[in-house]
Amino acid sequence: MNSPLSQLGLRTAPPAISWLMSLTLGHPQLISLAAGFTDNASLPVDEARALLDEILSAPRTGQPALQYGSTAGDPLLRELTAKRLSALDAPVAAGVPPAVEPGVPPGGKKATNAKTARKNDSHLKSASPLPGGRMPPTTAGGTPAATITPDRLLITHGSQQLLYLLTEALCDPGDIVLVEDPTYFVYLGIAQSHGLRCRGVRLLPDGIDLAHLEQVLEELRRSGDLPRMKLLYLVTYYQNPTGYTTSYAKKAAALKLLRRYEKFAGHPLYLLEDAAYRELRFSGDDIPSALTAPGGTDRVLYAGTYSKPFATGIRVGFGVLPEPVLTTATRIKGNHDFGTANLLQQLLSRALATGAYERHLAELQRRYALKARVMTDAVRAHFPADVEWREPAGGLYVWARTPKRLRTGPKSQFFQTALKQNVLYVPGVLCYADDAVRRKPDHEMRLSFGGAGEQDITEGIKRLGTVLSI
Amino acid sequence: MNSPLSQLGLRTAPPAISWLMSLTLGHPQLISLAAGFTDNASLPVDEARALLDEILSAPRTGQPALQYGSTAGDPLLRELTAKRLSALDAPVAAGVPPAVEPGVPPGGKKATNAKTARKNDSHLKSASPLPGGRMPPTTAGGTPAATITPDRLLITHGSQQLLYLLTEALCDPGDIVLVEDPTYFVYLGIAQSHGLRCRGVRLLPDGIDLAHLEQVLEELRRSGDLPRMKLLYLVTYYQNPTGYTTSYAKKAAALKLLRRYEKFAGHPLYLLEDAAYRELRFSGDDIPSALTAPGGTDRVLYAGTYSKPFATGIRVGFGVLPEPVLTTATRIKGNHDFGTANLLQQLLSRALATGAYERHLAELQRRYALKARVMTDAVRAHFPADVEWREPAGGLYVWARTPKRLRTGPKSQFFQTALKQNVLYVPGVLCYADDAVRRKPDHEMRLSFGGAGEQDITEGIKRLGTVLSI
Repeated sequence: MNSPLSQLGLRTAPPAISWLMSLTLGHPQLISLAAGFTDNASLPVDEARALLDEILSAPRTGQPALQYGSTAGDPLLRELTAKRLSALDAPVAAGVPPAVEPGVPPGGKKATNAKTARKNDSHLKSASPLPGGRMPPTTAGGTPAATITPDRLLITHGSQQLLYLLTEALCDPGDIVLVEDPTYFVYLGIAQSHGLRCRGVRLLPDGIDLAHLEQVLEELRRSGDLPRMKLLYLVTYYQNPTGYTTSYAKKAAALKLLRRYEKFAGHPLYLLEDAAYRELRFSGDDIPSALTAPGGTDRVLYAGTYSKPFATGIRVGFGVLPEPVLTTATRIKGNHDFGTANLLQQLLSRALATGAYERHLAELQRRYALKARVMTDAVRAHFPADVEWREPAGGLYVWARTPKRLRTGPKSQFFQTALKQNVLYVPGVLCYADDAVRRKPDHEMRLSFGGAGEQDITEGIKRLGTVLSI
Repeated sequence: MNSPLSQLGLRTAPPAISWLMSLTLGHPQLISLAAGFTDNASLPVDEARALLDEILSAPRTGQPALQYGSTAGDPLLRELTAKRLSALDAPVAAGVPPAVEPGVPPGGKKATNAKTARKNDSHLKSASPLPGGRMPPTTAGGTPAATITPDRLLITHGSQQLLYLLTEALCDPGDIVLVEDPTYFVYLGIAQSHGLRCRGVRLLPDGIDLAHLEQVLEELRRSGDLPRMKLLYLVTYYQNPTGYTTSYAKKAAALKLLRRYEKFAGHPLYLLEDAAYRELRFSGDDIPSALTAPGGTDRVLYAGTYSKPFATGIRVGFGVLPEPVLTTATRIKGNHDFGTANLLQQLLSRALATGAYERHLAELQRRYALKARVMTDAVRAHFPADVEWREPAGGLYVWARTPKRLRTGPKSQFFQTALKQNVLYVPGVLCYADDAVRRKPDHEMRLSFGGAGEQDITEGIKRLGTVLSI
């Protein structure tokens, strides 16, 4: 008897995360620096209790929270989200230069190999007058970006659902998506299950290597594959897994480059900006979204979430989308579940409206700043000098690179020895797309300071350091 | 420039429901007997408040509710759901005869046209010793069905999400699903978006016409299409849109018939049992699920929900699934959203564990019984005698059939006149799959007593009656 499964069903592989979780179950004493869980002690238990109590204390507010809503999402939550995003992006909305400095030809003819690009990247960084590559507010020149309006939003069960909906809306089996090298591994799971071909674009500490992006686009143009390319997926803030943040200049340059190649693709080439960690910032300034860059309104698919900054058990994410993607994704969402659970949406609406969200976020940022420092202090103390890593400015992760001779993959001696010492990390190799043109690097680790307590972070890093020094 | 959308994106049509909702917006005075909303006044506002307050009153219970959980779902909710389902199905689990009486050859050679089938169907009904076609508990003969264990369950964001996941897991574009004629129109939306071909099977008041089912299977076998068929979708309790309930004998017979055709399909043929309205029963007995029928454990995909019986703003549904469907659907769910929002799951767990769910359900059943009677009283008083309809024993709907000359479709004079009188119903034609072998009936209406208040129900039916009598 044949399998009854569909092609998608047959393709969909077990998620890397379930393999890691099964290891956790088998090792009750394990210190997990692998899980992307948020900090238990930081969860807004009291806040959620008070907010829900308010909502459910009267039928006028309680009944709508327990009833169906619209597929696009709670109107108030969309309004508050649009306002919040507009405010975050305000410096640019007020008018900013087209964001790519002279002297850095994004995707220009000269910058077609990695070394040149790396030089350009550092130039970009030093030319950026504010921390994080933020552009200064100005009214001179440039196209003022439109303020974000609620009708551009779709509320989803976490931003993960949005990534799924967008994949369904845009990608057929065999289509191509460009991803950062490395990237968010659950997105790779979605791409894999849909039979997509991924092409990795080299990632630098301030975002993708623009020259490499152009090189990949150029290869796709030459091979005639560009009509199958749909989007470039970037995790732009405190990226999962590296913690790197994409500079504003790079977002704008990537958009411009995509636009240039559209005539060869024959259709829009989108920049899917995954901003899941944007609000988990604990040092430096926020960077405006790609929505505000020239052409951003039409070509950026912005994915945001309230789950990580508020509570992961309350799955509420959102997208800011151009047409025809918005209408299509909303229709598909209607087929998925009619709309996000209203109780969760109204809880978030009230958290935003009352200021409880902002207060919680400030506390969370303080907490993660502390835990990040605990981890980096331990790394500094216990890791050998030949392991490379950076101080994160937000998010949940420290990315560490061992010397190339020391492999970190699931079957490596290092991973197995660490496991025997009851420490778990995410092997870097899991975060690289299948891409035939390069070997997957296998000497990196994602270390999360999200879920583990401070003592466990220190002890876990210390044990890893011991194994690294063997 | 070409469209950037995928084939699925291009196919996904605007849902019928959004067109109906746009009519609602344009007519603020409208009495909607169209919406599948549940009764606002019945929503468990106080209960949800108390339960959430308990959960969030201590970090020990509050933190897990606000944290990520597993993709398959909260272990306690799966356990309580498995127990609850096992108890509902207990009379059969204790042992029951193979459930198809002698004299009714299910799919037998004699019953290959509708007239014979109809005779057999009435025979089935009269032979059924308990209301609703329930079989008496017995230990004699038959295969005792296994008790449902938690490891067979997947918790989803409403049972709608489960229907979507199962479609993804099993169906490729061009595949065939068999549906009731008429059926739940949002399922038709899922099928349409996935490029599936639907074949309608005639629906009688006690479930599908078995002879017609066999006829369709036989046609598919002869045309060589059976290898493309994946499942038979039945809404078995107080069906949306008709309110009809499938007898136990028919479920068992349908399963047996599907099994017989598997050798021609080359793969399992599933019975997808959508039990969304099972608990909204207000007269007669419950009927055991198809899971308990011979072969049910391996071939039934059972879809249940807590949203309708508790609160539609709390989207929690579940599936009981055999392998390899369970593992595949769970993996796909992981790509969708990692798992159902934990806050919602823990709220339901507590509602079930404390008895709050049962108490609310009893109250809801009383309330819907009353509202159903309000509607049927009004129908009896105001509809002409040539309109056919039945007293519902559960669910949210009355299905009314006008004489064939009186069309009820969206463009019909009747629908437009009703709209001018500020009354909205769901035109029956929307509930029929595209199936080239028959014309869609266009002289039926789905009348919901779920969302509207009692006065509105009476007034709405009265106005419809007036228009019907013109």
